[in-house]
Amino acid sequence: MSDSSLPPSLHTALKDLLGPAGLLTGTDDTASYCTDWRMLYQGRCAAVLRPASTEECAKAVALCAEHGVPMVPQGGNTSMVGGATPDDSGRAVIISTTRMNRIRHIDHGDLTMTVEAGVTLKAAQEAAAREGLMLPLSISSEGSADIGGVIATNAGGNNTVRYGNARELTLGLEVVLPDGNTLNLMRRLRKDNTGYPLRQLFVGAEGTLGLITTAIIQLQPSPRSRETALCAVQSPEQALALFAAFRKHDPSAVLAFEYMSGTSMNLVTTLIDNCTLPLSEPAPAYALVELASTRSDDSLRTLMESVLEQAFEEELISDAVLAESETQRQSLWMIREEHAEAQKRAGASVKNDVSVPLSAIPAFITEATQRCEALIPGIRVAPFGHIGDGNIHFNLVQPEGGDSQAFLSQDHAIMDTVAEIVRKYDGSFSAEHGVGQLKTYMMPSWRGGAELATMEKIKAALDPHNLMNPGKIFPAA
Amino acid sequence: MSDSSLPPSLHTALKDLLGPAGLLTGTDDTASYCTDWRMLYQGRCAAVLRPASTEECAKAVALCAEHGVPMVPQGGNTSMVGGATPDDSGRAVIISTTRMNRIRHIDHGDLTMTVEAGVTLKAAQEAAAREGLMLPLSISSEGSADIGGVIATNAGGNNTVRYGNARELTLGLEVVLPDGNTLNLMRRLRKDNTGYPLRQLFVGAEGTLGLITTAIIQLQPSPRSRETALCAVQSPEQALALFAAFRKHDPSAVLAFEYMSGTSMNLVTTLIDNCTLPLSEPAPAYALVELASTRSDDSLRTLMESVLEQAFEEELISDAVLAESETQRQSLWMIREEHAEAQKRAGASVKNDVSVPLSAIPAFITEATQRCEALIPGIRVAPFGHIGDGNIHFNLVQPEGGDSQAFLSQDHAIMDTVAEIVRKYDGSFSAEHGVGQLKTYMMPSWRGGAELATMEKIKAALDPHNLMNPGKIFPAA
Repeated sequence: MSDSSLPPSLHTALKDLLGPAGLLTGTDDTASYCTDWRMLYQGRCAAVLRPASTEECAKAVALCAEHGVPMVPQGGNTSMVGGATPDDSGRAVIISTTRMNRIRHIDHGDLTMTVEAGVTLKAAQEAAAREGLMLPLSISSEGSADIGGVIATNAGGNNTVRYGNARELTLGLEVVLPDGNTLNLMRRLRKDNTGYPLRQLFVGAEGTLGLITTAIIQLQPSPRSRETALCAVQSPEQALALFAAFRKHDPSAVLAFEYMSGTSMNLVTTLIDNCTLPLSEPAPAYALVELASTRSDDSLRTLMESVLEQAFEEELISDAVLAESETQRQSLWMIREEHAEAQKRAGASVKNDVSVPLSAIPAFITEATQRCEALIPGIRVAPFGHIGDGNIHFNLVQPEGGDSQAFLSQDHAIMDTVAEIVRKYDGSFSAEHGVGQLKTYMMPSWRGGAELATMEKIKAALDPHNLMNPGKIFPAA
Repeated sequence: MSDSSLPPSLHTALKDLLGPAGLLTGTDDTASYCTDWRMLYQGRCAAVLRPASTEECAKAVALCAEHGVPMVPQGGNTSMVGGATPDDSGRAVIISTTRMNRIRHIDHGDLTMTVEAGVTLKAAQEAAAREGLMLPLSISSEGSADIGGVIATNAGGNNTVRYGNARELTLGLEVVLPDGNTLNLMRRLRKDNTGYPLRQLFVGAEGTLGLITTAIIQLQPSPRSRETALCAVQSPEQALALFAAFRKHDPSAVLAFEYMSGTSMNLVTTLIDNCTLPLSEPAPAYALVELASTRSDDSLRTLMESVLEQAFEEELISDAVLAESETQRQSLWMIREEHAEAQKRAGASVKNDVSVPLSAIPAFITEATQRCEALIPGIRVAPFGHIGDGNIHFNLVQPEGGDSQAFLSQDHAIMDTVAEIVRKYDGSFSAEHGVGQLKTYMMPSWRGGAELATMEKIKAALDPHNLMNPGKIFPAA
């Protein structure tokens, strides 16, 4: 007990409730929970609670609430914005969902999976795939990110263009509220208009209104065929026009449509082993398109080829390669997935996870590129991302051979420059990653007035003592 | 002024603000606004306000709020549950969105429509269709129901199985809050994780948290081909198995999948002119399936025929007719759309707009049918509806030649009987129609405990004086 700052009566009660495996108090044991994986934040905690069931979790939350102890829900700890890291007061407990990790049921009639919060997204995807079904949510951190966190942050990723974000896939939820009451919204219904859509409120609330313990996820039949192509384009305009061409022919066939700037692609092919450009020469930009269908006929190949042929004729694309095997398909995707790693190896970088309306993407990329290049000579403007749903990771890499610290000292100037153009096009300063603690300062100017005031009213109504994930989403008063 | 019970200072201020076209106070002028179209409720109001813009609406709401006058938002006045009708105190004003009726913009790049609340769903559908686009929400009342009401009640209808409810189609919203502040959530973004998803909260809140004035709707490319078939099946099990067969081959092709009981179909073919069964003989039940594709090839016909052929072989269906022309397609849909009218002509009926998980539909229909037939000898159990999304209109028609009043006197016994089985399968007592005033009494037993308590906290936080659509959703204290 000497190494815990928990009130003694709470410590005793939690130890009785959770047992040795469920309560970590020593600094050594809790240290890894107190830092985010990006190493942006170093917090402290009074303890890490690891309940093994909803019942244990609810009782633990009730005990903490009675003692006025703040609680920080944590899943796979993969937040990009410090959303699951406590502050450095050491007062808060972290509630880890790691031990709530059962896939309870997969239903072939309803196409649903009932799954506990601590199951990783990848484990859930694989369980669905073993049953011939698809969990159509795919993000870079899926090997570590867990279902609870994925839903609490309304994760997006590559397949949003076809299947929506985590929100659209979440049919049912079970949530432990800040006072320890359990909210059972575990209904597997496509239609249910019986009062406020509470389920929707917890998806994307980043754990500030309650802790998600279980979910029912909507699955889809696994695709029988996929067609994947990497295309060289001259500009973001052409990439968007290519997307529109596929969408016009069959929006339901487009599982993913990704954009990669030539600058970012160049970093991948030069800095990542075994990643070579499978096209005859480099281009100003690239589009990676994946079509998928559950039909057994081969019309998907026809669709891909006919759209690409027409795109050649209209000079929308200058080159393209189609995956002829699953291995080739994975190689094309590896090129896409290595952009973050390549940028990391290229030096310091400033990340902007932004979205704009689809139609504004070309103008946004062009203007933001020009402005950043004017701001810092030699800066490598390396955007990539999910152009099919309007989400660009507008990342800026330091000048080659330049000083990293000097570059990073201008991070606010860079972010403000990008943000100004995002704002001009009615976009979002955080498309996928959420607010966490990193972006709370942006809330007043972007979501201020009636919008932030309404959020604050909801927070105060459901968590009047500000005990659940404090310091996230809302700027310090 | 003599015929208005508005406080004089409020009356003057509203008259100045809204002008003669915007303020109705005489009983003759306001009467039609005070009754719901089902004639279940006869309310009274102090005035009908008809603002022509968001600005006028916001100012009018602020004035009413200052005077403590309750407000009832009203769109096309097509609620099935008295959701837009005032109580009989005469204290409330009705705020009609009728004059906010412009389609502001259709964007081909974003596939969006920016539309004011008072535009009817049908007018919005037609505007999209003229541009080669589809607004994929279709409900029986679409000729009168307006966009504001459709979103406020999270309308569903025939295409939910493919495109979701109004919620999934609503990209942006503008809402006047109970205090007269305007909440601008008019972003056209597929990804935007910047705080609580307020937009989601107003979809389905039935006007109790604010008044929707403008929306941005997600459109789709218009289908290039449709295939529609009416199939005879022996049971709900077979209808569901047929749906699963289509879903397995291509879930994205199924635009609608409707169920009709033989009893209900028999009412249509005997009581509605020009509605004959286009099959060789009557069956215990029917499925109407519509496939749609934006692809230009003819593979949709192949898909329809191959699934139906296999269904014949597996004896899932005993007969089927495919529409060979647009006229035939419309005839098949007319048969489906006339079920409500045929039931009306057959005498008194009790309606249950319920949903259960897809996999539970056959058991639900079978058990509920048996129980109702045991309850009232001769009762005509006539379910139909959107089986593809789990939503059945489980309607009961009085015994032929029996006494209507005697039948209706047992409406609670009938509804309770159906509800008990819905509850057994974790279903919803109101799939599409909402709670309104008609079903507030069901909220404590169905959504009680932490769920209703959380809803009440949100209501109190956003509308502390209970001025916005009072008496809806929440049971009287």
